[in-house]
Amino acid sequence: MPPAGFRYAGVAAGIKQAGSTRLDLGLVVADGLATAAGLFTRNRIKAAPVGLSQSRLRGGRLRGIVVNAGNANACTGPVGLRDAREMTEKTAGLVGARATTIAVASTGVIGVPLPMERVRPGIEQAVQALSPGRTGFDRFSQAMLTTDRGPKTASAEVGGARILGCAKGAGMIAPNLATTLAFVMTDAACEPRWLKRALSVEAAATFNAVSVDGDTSTNDSLFILASGARGGRTLASDDRPGRAFREALREVLLALAKALVRDGEGATKLVRIRVEGARSEADARAVARRVAGSSLVKTAFFGADPNWGRILCAVGNAGVRLVPERIELDFDDVAVVRRGMRLDGAETERRAHEVMSRSEYRVRIGLNQGRASAEFWTCDLGHEYVSINADYRS
Amino acid sequence: MPPAGFRYAGVAAGIKQAGSTRLDLGLVVADGLATAAGLFTRNRIKAAPVGLSQSRLRGGRLRGIVVNAGNANACTGPVGLRDAREMTEKTAGLVGARATTIAVASTGVIGVPLPMERVRPGIEQAVQALSPGRTGFDRFSQAMLTTDRGPKTASAEVGGARILGCAKGAGMIAPNLATTLAFVMTDAACEPRWLKRALSVEAAATFNAVSVDGDTSTNDSLFILASGARGGRTLASDDRPGRAFREALREVLLALAKALVRDGEGATKLVRIRVEGARSEADARAVARRVAGSSLVKTAFFGADPNWGRILCAVGNAGVRLVPERIELDFDDVAVVRRGMRLDGAETERRAHEVMSRSEYRVRIGLNQGRASAEFWTCDLGHEYVSINADYRS
Repeated sequence: MPPAGFRYAGVAAGIKQAGSTRLDLGLVVADGLATAAGLFTRNRIKAAPVGLSQSRLRGGRLRGIVVNAGNANACTGPVGLRDAREMTEKTAGLVGARATTIAVASTGVIGVPLPMERVRPGIEQAVQALSPGRTGFDRFSQAMLTTDRGPKTASAEVGGARILGCAKGAGMIAPNLATTLAFVMTDAACEPRWLKRALSVEAAATFNAVSVDGDTSTNDSLFILASGARGGRTLASDDRPGRAFREALREVLLALAKALVRDGEGATKLVRIRVEGARSEADARAVARRVAGSSLVKTAFFGADPNWGRILCAVGNAGVRLVPERIELDFDDVAVVRRGMRLDGAETERRAHEVMSRSEYRVRIGLNQGRASAEFWTCDLGHEYVSINADYRS
Repeated sequence: MPPAGFRYAGVAAGIKQAGSTRLDLGLVVADGLATAAGLFTRNRIKAAPVGLSQSRLRGGRLRGIVVNAGNANACTGPVGLRDAREMTEKTAGLVGARATTIAVASTGVIGVPLPMERVRPGIEQAVQALSPGRTGFDRFSQAMLTTDRGPKTASAEVGGARILGCAKGAGMIAPNLATTLAFVMTDAACEPRWLKRALSVEAAATFNAVSVDGDTSTNDSLFILASGARGGRTLASDDRPGRAFREALREVLLALAKALVRDGEGATKLVRIRVEGARSEADARAVARRVAGSSLVKTAFFGADPNWGRILCAVGNAGVRLVPERIELDFDDVAVVRRGMRLDGAETERRAHEVMSRSEYRVRIGLNQGRASAEFWTCDLGHEYVSINADYRS
């Protein structure tokens, strides 16, 4: 069962294509005002729904979120903002809420105004279809997809509360700028400011630790809604129940983030980059991000080529102070580099190649400079990637 | 004729492959002490020859540079430094110079000690072969190549002096970490500190304004040697002759840098990213670099897809303050975006696609925020790129 206190819907409004039966408009509505928080793209060019949702979240409470796929409502000027606002007003009117308590998210093509003549009846249809069960949630999770292989959901239970999330985004790069949308619902009761901080911190080690080739989209949005419907004490600090909730939240976010990478177009491998022995967490993260984002490294992953020189080169490009002669490198349990130099032997190479042929493995980079560590998740860069992204619109 | 005051050689030492006739050891020697300057990789993991050459350049004078391909002498520990030093000592002994006036550059595989038993006789052979004419220079320019399609050279004349340069590097990405080596010789007379600054400034708008996917190699090196053999006044300031020399130098560097991009593995297009109307040159450069380096943009170039949304997204990711509603975008003479929004019409799209089908074109990004501008050169990202980099060592 999904967390109590919410109803969901996903309908075919014809935004992707008029008359199509593909779901493209989703709605989640809380029974009462839910505690809410969000994280949004840092791209300077933000889609209209992003700015609007940010302002709607200022009070830390929401009644619902309306989502559409097929059109990003980005680079659409004043018309775009008017349309985004109308989507929330329309939803609010139908569910009996104030428009300022409804947020909105969009994903799809850029620069084309929303077909509001299809969005409006779509919202009416969605409000009609709202239901609290898994079926409604599943349709909601499908209505936000574009080029994804399928819906991505994850759940956890903690102290009697449920957490359930779904995400959209085709991993490394989707044609439509790798837009990531994610929605997490829980029936725990949470204090708004604490929830916002919890979301930020846990997203840093999950959603912000997957490689999406650096091009943050104009629409990236991550929402959390806490209905409080399970009753019980309101979580407001990092005490034991608060920490337990954060751990469960992290678990859900990590599962969604890994699903995004695994679903990367053309991706055949899921690789965990673990950096250890850094001077600071910031250093560790910088190195992990650099390695995870290097096209040279990602193509070597695609070819299962234990080309440790490329990985060391990416490490050196992270702008972090380090002593090259101390670096260690392992592929899963195969040690390849010690003291900044490769370990001899065709046997080492053969075994490393074997590890890299797996669909999931770990690259450990030991800097031997301190005690901080960080992890990033990335995928390989293959022919599919080029095909999908070169041929997208033609 | 090459600039006076230098002799060149390129020989097959068998470093790439024992017994092969492929040139892989090059030598340039000035008749006397030449004014010299260099720019080197900022990667924290530097190959042995890089550190050694940096220290040899401290005095601003060199007699010569010995170069090898087939082995980068990187991540080779103390042995690597000893080998690099021995290469300069061996060269110095044979040409009658002090070892401290000889620099060294290497490119090729990482992590394997140099085959010194083949390097030593190679240097002897090269010293024997030294000659001042174009043939010697051409062999020198060939001896540094790895996966390049061919040698890249450029020349200019200014105030009676000649400038001649050659470069190595397979553009966007070469299997061996896109190592760039470049050597520029001139018979102008130059004051060392002024020459160093001139090289830095002119490289910023040329060598540092081409997209090499961000992974600076462990070996990147750019040298300039000025023999002063044409006689005349020593250039020491940005007076009229000084400025004229710098312009000619920029012309040579730009021609070499563009040749690097054009030679990019898998590259089919050379694209000039021009950013105008930025608040500062740093802003303009940041935007140009971001667009030029975006995999999403580069795959769109490959597919000749006028996907302006991706370009705007990359602009927004540059971390530069801007007003999205002011952005303009043109492909050559085809206006595609005005006031942050696309111009309507299938005709615009068709004409933009036509421009993007050319082998060379310009993308103009107008920010309308100020008066600063910058340019970057980049290429497309195609299937060849993946093939070459995934299959490199297997």
